[in-house]
Amino acid sequence: MMAIESKPENDSPRSNILETPQLIPRSEHPLDSSDRILSIQSHVAYGYVGGKAAVFPLQCIGYDVDVVNTVNFSNHTGYARFAGTRTSAEELASIFKSMDETGLLAPRRLLTGYIPNAAALEVIRNLAQKLKSNNPQLIYLLDPVLGDSGKLYVSQDVIPIYKGMLSFATIITPNWFEVETLTGVRLRSLSALRDALSILHKQVPHVVISSIPLQPWLSEVLPQTMQPPASTDNQKGYLLCICSSHAVGTNSLSTVHARVVPLIPGYFSGVGDLFSALTLGHFDPSSSALHSQTPLSFAVAAALHKTHSILELTNAFAARLPPEECTATDDELDAAEPVRQLRRMRGRELRLVQGQDILREEWREGQGRDMHLWDGF
Amino acid sequence: MMAIESKPENDSPRSNILETPQLIPRSEHPLDSSDRILSIQSHVAYGYVGGKAAVFPLQCIGYDVDVVNTVNFSNHTGYARFAGTRTSAEELASIFKSMDETGLLAPRRLLTGYIPNAAALEVIRNLAQKLKSNNPQLIYLLDPVLGDSGKLYVSQDVIPIYKGMLSFATIITPNWFEVETLTGVRLRSLSALRDALSILHKQVPHVVISSIPLQPWLSEVLPQTMQPPASTDNQKGYLLCICSSHAVGTNSLSTVHARVVPLIPGYFSGVGDLFSALTLGHFDPSSSALHSQTPLSFAVAAALHKTHSILELTNAFAARLPPEECTATDDELDAAEPVRQLRRMRGRELRLVQGQDILREEWREGQGRDMHLWDGF
Repeated sequence: MMAIESKPENDSPRSNILETPQLIPRSEHPLDSSDRILSIQSHVAYGYVGGKAAVFPLQCIGYDVDVVNTVNFSNHTGYARFAGTRTSAEELASIFKSMDETGLLAPRRLLTGYIPNAAALEVIRNLAQKLKSNNPQLIYLLDPVLGDSGKLYVSQDVIPIYKGMLSFATIITPNWFEVETLTGVRLRSLSALRDALSILHKQVPHVVISSIPLQPWLSEVLPQTMQPPASTDNQKGYLLCICSSHAVGTNSLSTVHARVVPLIPGYFSGVGDLFSALTLGHFDPSSSALHSQTPLSFAVAAALHKTHSILELTNAFAARLPPEECTATDDELDAAEPVRQLRRMRGRELRLVQGQDILREEWREGQGRDMHLWDGF
Repeated sequence: MMAIESKPENDSPRSNILETPQLIPRSEHPLDSSDRILSIQSHVAYGYVGGKAAVFPLQCIGYDVDVVNTVNFSNHTGYARFAGTRTSAEELASIFKSMDETGLLAPRRLLTGYIPNAAALEVIRNLAQKLKSNNPQLIYLLDPVLGDSGKLYVSQDVIPIYKGMLSFATIITPNWFEVETLTGVRLRSLSALRDALSILHKQVPHVVISSIPLQPWLSEVLPQTMQPPASTDNQKGYLLCICSSHAVGTNSLSTVHARVVPLIPGYFSGVGDLFSALTLGHFDPSSSALHSQTPLSFAVAAALHKTHSILELTNAFAARLPPEECTATDDELDAAEPVRQLRRMRGRELRLVQGQDILREEWREGQGRDMHLWDGF
C-alpha cells in the first residue's frame, strides 16, 4: 500500500526527479525535537487542502504543529458545494491572546496560508509582527494566497495588507500570478522576472516562485543545464521552480536556483499548501554543511521532489479509478452533470497518507535532485 | 530524535510490555488503502487531546481521516485558561448534510469522542444512525466521554442520549466511571463487573474498559496468569485493561481478555483519545489468522502497548525538563501559583510526533504483548 507508483519515464533522462526515495531511519533526522510550528490555515473535514495538506507532512518530518483553523469547511471549494463557517477575526484574536497569556505562543516557526478576509488577515499581521518582535530568529513562511492563473480568489482589500506583511516574512512562496499582483510587474521577460524578485527582496530575504509555465520567453533564457530533456513527448509541458536568496538591505547579488519539473495535467487541490509546508519544514538557516546549495535551495529541492512524487502517486491512483470517477477537466461537461466534477475532485485528493514514506524521507544534497545554480542571473 | 526512551525496568519480569517495537516496513501493512475513518472530536490549537491525539496516529497507521471539529479551542481545559468556540449543532448538521449531498459521507469507520452538549450529541446520534443504516458493516467506535474518577464533565442530559446511541456502536471504550454511569452498576466486585458488561452487551458487541485501578477486590479475583509481577516496587500500582466480545442478541458466553499495565503517576491529557483511536485503527473484524486472540483483544493489545509506550516517552521527557516545568500534581500549590499548573501541563503533552515510530509499528500477536484470555470469566 505504501509503494511509490511511478509512470514509465523511459523517454526522459531526467527521470531521477521521480525516482523512488531512499528511506532513512527517523532516528537520524537532524531536527531539534523542540522545534515547533504554528500553522494558521483553512480546515476541511474531507480531503487535503490548507492545514490538512500541511500539518500531517510537517508532523511526519518531526515537528510539533500548533494548528489554528481560519475556516472549518466540509471540503474544499472546488467541489460543487460546501458547508461550514469562517473563523471571525475576533475569535482568532481571542485564541492568540489566550495562548499568549498561557505561555503557549512561542513557536520557532510560523506558517500562514489562506486567510478568508481582510479583518482576519489584519489579526494575523499583528500576530506575525508580535512574534517577530519577540523573537527576531522566528522563521516565518508566508504564502500570500491571492489567486491563480490570472484570477483573484480573495477580495482586493487583502492585497495591501499582504504587501505590508512582507517585511515580517523569512520566506514567501507566491505563484507567478501572486508575484505579478504583489509587484505590479508582468512576468514576460527575464528582466521583468529580475525586477519582480528585486522588488520582493527589498523586504523578504527568501523568495520562491514554485511554478512558472515554461513558455517560450522563459525557455529561451534558461541556461542549458536547466533545460528540460529533448524528447518526442515534449508536448506535455514543463514548469520552472525558481528560488532566490538575498540579504535584505544590502547591494549584494541574489543567489538564484531553479529546476524544471514536468507538468502533470489536470487540477489538483492543496499542492501549493503542501509545497509551502515542506519548504518551511526543510529550511534550516544554520546548516553549514551544504556544498552547492543555499539553505533555501536545499529546502526547495526537497519540497519540490516530495510534492511532485505525491502528485505522481495521486495521478496514478486517479488514473486507475473507474471511468466515471476520473473524467478529464471540462467545464462544459461539468456544468451539464455536476456529479461529474465532484467525482473527479474526490479521485484527485492528494495521497498524503499513502505517500507518507515520501514525506518522511530525510533529504540530502548531491543525489541528483538538487536545484541548479542559475549563474549570472 | 526518534529513539524510544524507556525507563529501566529491571525490577519487572513483564518489561516486555515496554520493549522497543520492531519496525515493519509500511509496505507490508495489511490495511485496505481505501479504508476511511470519520473522526468527530474536539480540536485544540496547542497540544494533543481529542482529534489532535487521534488523527495523526490513525494517519500513521494508514487511514485517510475525515475530521469534523466539535470545538475549536486554543488548548485543553486542563490549562488554567482557554479560548475558542464550540461548533453549534446547526453547523455540525450543515456540514454532514453537505458532505452527504456531495458524496463525501461514506466512511467505513466512525470515531466519536467528546461532544460538548446534548444538542450537538443528538446530531451525532442521527448521523451514526444514518451511517449504520446505509452500511450495516460500518465499524463505529463510540467513546462515551462523560467524566472520570467519579466526576462528570458533561451535563446530565447527555447521559440518556449516549444510552440510546449504544445500539449503533460496534465498540465502546468507557472508563470505569463511565461504565458505572451508563449501567448504574458500581464496580466493586467480580459479579458487578459481570453485570455491567452484560448490560452493555445487550446493545454493543465489543466493550473495552481501558483502565480499572487494581484495587484489592479486583486483584483477588484476577487469574494468576494476569497478576502483576511480585516486586519490592509494587507501591506504584497497576491498572487493568479488560475487553469483552459478545454476539448481541444471543445467549452465548462473552470472550473476555485482560492485561495489567503499571500506572504512570501524574495526569496526562488525551490518553483515552489516543487509546480509542488506536483500538479502532487496529480492529479488523475479518481477520481470520488469529490464534489466541479475538479481533477485539488483538486491537486492544496494540492500542494498550502503543499508548503505554507513548506515555512512557512523555513521562521520560517531562522528567528531564527544568524543575519549574515538571512540578508534581498539587492542587494547593497550583492555586497559589497558577503558572505552575500550566508549565506542568505543557511538559506533559503527549509526545506523539516524537513517538511516531511507535504508532506506526505493525502489530502481530504472539510477541509476548497479547491480552490474556480470562477463562471462565
